Amino acid sequence: MSLAIYPGSFDPPTLGHLDVVERASRLFDHLVVAVGVNSSKSSMLTCDARVRALEQCVAPWPNVSVDSFSGLLIDYALAREAGIIVRGLRATSDFDYEFQMAMVNRRLSEQVDTVFLMTRWEYSYLSSSIVREVAQLGGNYSEMVPPPVRKPIADALRARSGY
Amino acid sequence: MSLAIYPGSFDPPTLGHLDVVERASRLFDHLVVAVGVNSSKSSMLTCDARVRALEQCVAPWPNVSVDSFSGLLIDYALAREAGIIVRGLRATSDFDYEFQMAMVNRRLSEQVDTVFLMTRWEYSYLSSSIVREVAQLGGNYSEMVPPPVRKPIADALRARSGY
Amino acid sequence: MSLAIYPGSFDPPTLGHLDVVERASRLFDHLVVAVGVNSSKSSMLTCDARVRALEQCVAPWPNVSVDSFSGLLIDYALAREAGIIVRGLRATSDFDYEFQMAMVNRRLSEQVDTVFLMTRWEYSYLSSSIVREVAQLGGNYSEMVPPPVRKPIADALRARSGY
Amino acid sequence: MSLAIYPGSFDPPTLGHLDVVERASRLFDHLVVAVGVNSSKSSMLTCDARVRALEQCVAPWPNVSVDSFSGLLIDYALAREAGIIVRGLRATSDFDYEFQMAMVNRRLSEQVDTVFLMTRWEYSYLSSSIVREVAQLGGNYSEMVPPPVRKPIADALRARSGY
Amino acid sequence: MSLAIYPGSFDPPTLGHLDVVERASRLFDHLVVAVGVNSSKSSMLTCDARVRALEQCVAPWPNVSVDSFSGLLIDYALAREAGIIVRGLRATSDFDYEFQMAMVNRRLSEQVDTVFLMTRWEYSYLSSSIVREVAQLGGNYSEMVPPPVRKPIADALRARSGY
Amino acid sequence: MSLAIYPGSFDPPTLGHLDVVERASRLFDHLVVAVGVNSSKSSMLTCDARVRALEQCVAPWPNVSVDSFSGLLIDYALAREAGIIVRGLRATSDFDYEFQMAMVNRRLSEQVDTVFLMTRWEYSYLSSSIVREVAQLGGNYSEMVPPPVRKPIADALRARSGY
Repeated sequence: MSLAIYPGSFDPPTLGHLDVVERASRLFDHLVVAVGVNSSKSSMLTCDARVRALEQCVAPWPNVSVDSFSGLLIDYALAREAGIIVRGLRATSDFDYEFQMAMVNRRLSEQVDTVFLMTRWEYSYLSSSIVREVAQLGGNYSEMVPPPVRKPIADALRARSGY
Repeated sequence: MSLAIYPGSFDPPTLGHLDVVERASRLFDHLVVAVGVNSSKSSMLTCDARVRALEQCVAPWPNVSVDSFSGLLIDYALAREAGIIVRGLRATSDFDYEFQMAMVNRRLSEQVDTVFLMTRWEYSYLSSSIVREVAQLGGNYSEMVPPPVRKPIADALRARSGY
Repeated sequence: MSLAIYPGSFDPPTLGHLDVVERASRLFDHLVVAVGVNSSKSSMLTCDARVRALEQCVAPWPNVSVDSFSGLLIDYALAREAGIIVRGLRATSDFDYEFQMAMVNRRLSEQVDTVFLMTRWEYSYLSSSIVREVAQLGGNYSEMVPPPVRKPIADALRARSGY
Repeated sequence: MSLAIYPGSFDPPTLGHLDVVERASRLFDHLVVAVGVNSSKSSMLTCDARVRALEQCVAPWPNVSVDSFSGLLIDYALAREAGIIVRGLRATSDFDYEFQMAMVNRRLSEQVDTVFLMTRWEYSYLSSSIVREVAQLGGNYSEMVPPPVRKPIADALRARSGY
Repeated sequence: MSLAIYPGSFDPPTLGHLDVVERASRLFDHLVVAVGVNSSKSSMLTCDARVRALEQCVAPWPNVSVDSFSGLLIDYALAREAGIIVRGLRATSDFDYEFQMAMVNRRLSEQVDTVFLMTRWEYSYLSSSIVREVAQLGGNYSEMVPPPVRKPIADALRARSGY
Repeated sequence: MSLAIYPGSFDPPTLGHLDVVERASRLFDHLVVAVGVNSSKSSMLTCDARVRALEQCVAPWPNVSVDSFSGLLIDYALAREAGIIVRGLRATSDFDYEFQMAMVNRRLSEQVDTVFLMTRWEYSYLSSSIVREVAQLGGNYSEMVPPPVRKPIADALRARSGY
């Protein structure tokens, strides 16, 4: 049975992320969407909010689950006994960074391999940081994220602006 | 009448920016150099200092004016009824980022198009962050910026160092 | 009056080219789509077939015309008294090549400037060479080119295969 | 059952190709290494020689087979009812080209997805064209290709030089 | 006599850095490994710890010494009467940034030239920031850094975690 | 004594090449400009014409000589007992290709290292292929090449056009 991990900060999850989830769910027996928790970085959504929203998003796929992890990704993958890390590539993503991380992870363990999927072109402009920027500047982000993610973002913006 | 916006943080304006202004002023009927205000980012020059320096720099071109804006660029462009966003590209600029932002902006509104000009090669090493770094480390930045920008930088450095 | 030239080999014209034509036609007073003739390179469509197909494609825009040229692009632009060269950029286009050609052209004449537009993302996979490859391998190219281009391609394929 | 195709010209197969084969064979139930035949391009090894050499190379993996195809890759994949195309990425490979081809293929059929694996760093300098160049200039290519590929190359070089 | 400077933050020094040192030591008569001190940036190792560790690392090469500097690199190079700046390039390094800095430095002084060496492929995934990230997340960084660097990192991690 | 080789096809030599020669001549004790002869590629200038023109160009530097070679560059470097290969990098050069070749060459011999210099920005648009294209299309190439190269190009163009 092939177990794959799709790691990310998902702050917030975007339609591009969901496209990768859908396609990876067809390639592997089980897929874990794994929210990386980085205590030293401030985030828009709490880890809990991200996990809950993702759980709603992935509900249609029975072989996809959601988890969170801290520490090194490779240690998490080994602990889960997952042999595959899935990453999405966009035409405008930082390919060199992705390549470097894949090499580091292979260096840290030969048992886990990184597999890259290409995000659909209609989502190639989309990234979590774009959504955050648009949202914080008052723009319309609703077509950039899956429906279950809209309310958590609205809540986070409201909390930030002091209500 | 074609109205184009040349947005940026211009912290500080460089000779490369001015080269783009000069050339865009020949392409379009009116050009607005628009200083983006981002309250969450610290800057070397105040928004006011940047606008005043740019106004002196663009004085030779009657069809160029200076403005500032906060919020989403695309909302500002729509509010000004500008159909064109101008961006300068350097050989060493982050092309992928520029491409992504152009896609985001087109997604947010089909009424505004992004046009790219290539900075002259003699300015291809120049960016605001390079000028800031050289200036803060005591280097000679005077040939990197238009004359009206020299004094504001000197003032900002003096203020920072505590006089 | 701003006169812009959109040069290319257009062998064949694609929907991506037409997208650039449409948008450039809004930016400039007059646009000339200029088919570059390179006698040393073999082509799928004859220069004539490309010009005729493009003329049908650009019929909807009264300020767009089609022409062909041989020799240096910059000499053609100067002869037409055009101040602007338009180039389309795709996320997957050879940005370095485009940058180099823009620098060469500016070096050859300061009177002509190159302006870059970004092809819509849904056409970012499209290039003339992709269409040629798909067509020659028997694939379906009809959704990759404007309708007036379909017959000339079919004719060229039939001629090649020896009817 | 997941059926994946690893297409290429494999002229000649390199150790980098074999690394991708080994890793893809662990990810998918069955892998077909598919030699693309392009009659309009001259090759160093005949299609037959490439297929025979690859068959020897993949003998250790029971779920890997070798085949050849002409025409469009996507048509071949659909005919084989394969849902996955595997491509190797090297740090120095033409990422933009790979991205473009993946987009074209998805456009031609939504039923087939492209998956990218990263070649190990010790093979990141290796490509078929490098091997051909080194071989044709009399250099030592034996550590660049799997053992079964050495004799076919030597034979091809000898045939070319007129024996 | 050729005097070259190899500048960097070396926070911490990696095996990739040492590879560049070894090879540059063969190219030039004397090489100074120069730790850049940037008071506005927080670092994992103190400048002192980095200099001491580097001194142990470079002990095998009699023509290599270690120094530190603040302010502009080009001013430091001129003060040392060094004509050469050495930089390592990895396949995944930010080539555009390196190019821009080399241009800036040449603009600031024509007397100093930048020379690039390519890091060995087995270290191409390695950077100081990767080591810091792996170390801070509890991973095994010992094969990423020269032996004299291990203890300073362990000390820094212990200090940070509050012992 | 450091002996460096600056290889290339130099078809024709450009001002960018000469800039690299000048700077490399200051870095190393002796520099050999080595014209690579590739019998399977057609060239504008004969190998002889390229060597003779380069000899005139490098006359001002007593420590620079000109040679030609066929076969593998690394074999030529080893035969000349040269420890250094010099390559010029332009912002618009094919960095990935250069990186790959440097890796191949190091793989073929650990005794020879590749060193990269950055071409001055005013020559960053220049390449031999650009000069050939401009020359063949009747453009003015005289400011792109050193004076001794002008007549050989004119001769080659005249021969080609049938006089």
